[in-house]
Amino acid sequence: MRIEIPVHLRWSDMDAYGHVNNVDMLRLLEIARIEAFWASDSQQHHTGILDALPGSPTATYVARQEIEYLAPLTYRREPVIVELWIGHIGGASLDICYAIRDPHTTSQPTVYAQASTTLVMVDTASGTPRRITHVEREAWVGYVGEPVSFRHRRSRA
Amino acid sequence: MRIEIPVHLRWSDMDAYGHVNNVDMLRLLEIARIEAFWASDSQQHHTGILDALPGSPTATYVARQEIEYLAPLTYRREPVIVELWIGHIGGASLDICYAIRDPHTTSQPTVYAQASTTLVMVDTASGTPRRITHVEREAWVGYVGEPVSFRHRRSRA
Amino acid sequence: MRIEIPVHLRWSDMDAYGHVNNVDMLRLLEIARIEAFWASDSQQHHTGILDALPGSPTATYVARQEIEYLAPLTYRREPVIVELWIGHIGGASLDICYAIRDPHTTSQPTVYAQASTTLVMVDTASGTPRRITHVEREAWVGYVGEPVSFRHRRSRA
Amino acid sequence: MRIEIPVHLRWSDMDAYGHVNNVDMLRLLEIARIEAFWASDSQQHHTGILDALPGSPTATYVARQEIEYLAPLTYRREPVIVELWIGHIGGASLDICYAIRDPHTTSQPTVYAQASTTLVMVDTASGTPRRITHVEREAWVGYVGEPVSFRHRRSRA
Repeated sequence: MRIEIPVHLRWSDMDAYGHVNNVDMLRLLEIARIEAFWASDSQQHHTGILDALPGSPTATYVARQEIEYLAPLTYRREPVIVELWIGHIGGASLDICYAIRDPHTTSQPTVYAQASTTLVMVDTASGTPRRITHVEREAWVGYVGEPVSFRHRRSRA
Repeated sequence: MRIEIPVHLRWSDMDAYGHVNNVDMLRLLEIARIEAFWASDSQQHHTGILDALPGSPTATYVARQEIEYLAPLTYRREPVIVELWIGHIGGASLDICYAIRDPHTTSQPTVYAQASTTLVMVDTASGTPRRITHVEREAWVGYVGEPVSFRHRRSRA
Repeated sequence: MRIEIPVHLRWSDMDAYGHVNNVDMLRLLEIARIEAFWASDSQQHHTGILDALPGSPTATYVARQEIEYLAPLTYRREPVIVELWIGHIGGASLDICYAIRDPHTTSQPTVYAQASTTLVMVDTASGTPRRITHVEREAWVGYVGEPVSFRHRRSRA
Repeated sequence: MRIEIPVHLRWSDMDAYGHVNNVDMLRLLEIARIEAFWASDSQQHHTGILDALPGSPTATYVARQEIEYLAPLTYRREPVIVELWIGHIGGASLDICYAIRDPHTTSQPTVYAQASTTLVMVDTASGTPRRITHVEREAWVGYVGEPVSFRHRRSRA
């Protein structure tokens, strides 16, 4: 199962090349990740159970990210879709996978990027990783799928 | 051989957690990459030979990035050091490797992140990749070194 | 008559104080201004007739801005409303007025900021201001209203 | 007396028009203001006595800003100069004035923008403004000068 989050671009996400800047593409991931995984009053996604606001007992730290840019993205008014799923649930961490793409209603929809983020649950009191809870695992397990297959990763042999 | 670029943080690089945001860490890489590889009147680095400003015959596209966050970074007035070297020179692309760290003059210097970027040379007229020139290869070959060894990359087997 | 543009905040709009940063508040204005005044295929606002994309015959330059911050704004999932109207139509320029506020459906809605921007129509070929056309004036005149009354402007006597 | 802060541009400060974006110009002000007014271990400016880091007893809130853009600014490696002085010292607030310009060593130096910011001292415990102390006033009084004269401010008569 996958989560689809519409994300609004900002004209300023483009750089002097006239494309959404490579760094700002990771901003789109962050926006979708927060929308999908953080709890809110208006609970919209089953996965949205993390109370990770500053001051909360849990903080979510990004441990690693990997992104492949597949097509240049330019500003448009209509939101792009960030599709999210879970590549792996570890003891204290989560691998979130993404595809940034056009809505399926687009004729000839394009995938602009695929990416993954390792997110670590941190106990804010101790500053150390804390285990993923049973409740979290239950909420997330239905979204586990095949991790992103990065095409151009250079092996380090 | 490695290139060391001092990069000034901005207070606004920090997010509501009070650390330099995970996305903005990639901004630091972009700043250092441009400083190290783009040509300028005041030639400062042997590697700085790319004329990639909008309107130039060559544009540099980021094809992929990978980053591992090793320690939280907070705002300070003194610049951090972004250390750059080349992990691989391909036919039309370059793997740039980075470490974001304290200056060596710091007592107990910390490495905050290690990362790599694949940069593709694009012919702006045709919009397609163009081969790395002899001049470029000569300028860069002395900076080739062991690629970053990412610790937590999950194999996809 | 006023235009109401819902604008999505991003968590990263907040700075280390945990509020939307003073600079990013002006980003919200830019987003709403582009949405309200730039032409698009899916014409949504009568005022949206400017073709100001890079490469177009007209560019819109910001000549001045003034903003008063009235209450701290924090990240929320629901968009804030940027209300826009026109304070003055000049020969080649436009004074756009704004209020950033909660939706009227909010109990005890708050106004977070009021602002104004002077926008100049520039002919991209010559790089000089060009006159506002009859068509533009017709489209905009219905939105002219009382300019923002800034409370704390210090007179320069 | 005026304070001159060299500020490094980032290539990403430019937008799709190829100029430093109007919003990011205010970022340059923030960078210079923090550098000039916040205390640091390596005390560089007499004015730098505010301990306003998150967690400190004082926070500095921006109450209003006004900026006039005078010439387009493009990315360059050498820092621009942000010149700061004080237009007015109030009971609990400070009007900071700025000019963003080329170094005086430039042939035909350009002023890109002039601006002012009203900064309010806030007691973080109570969340209300607190009076400027004697020590602060002593440190700042030597930098008081004529406020910025904005050319195109429209009177609201």
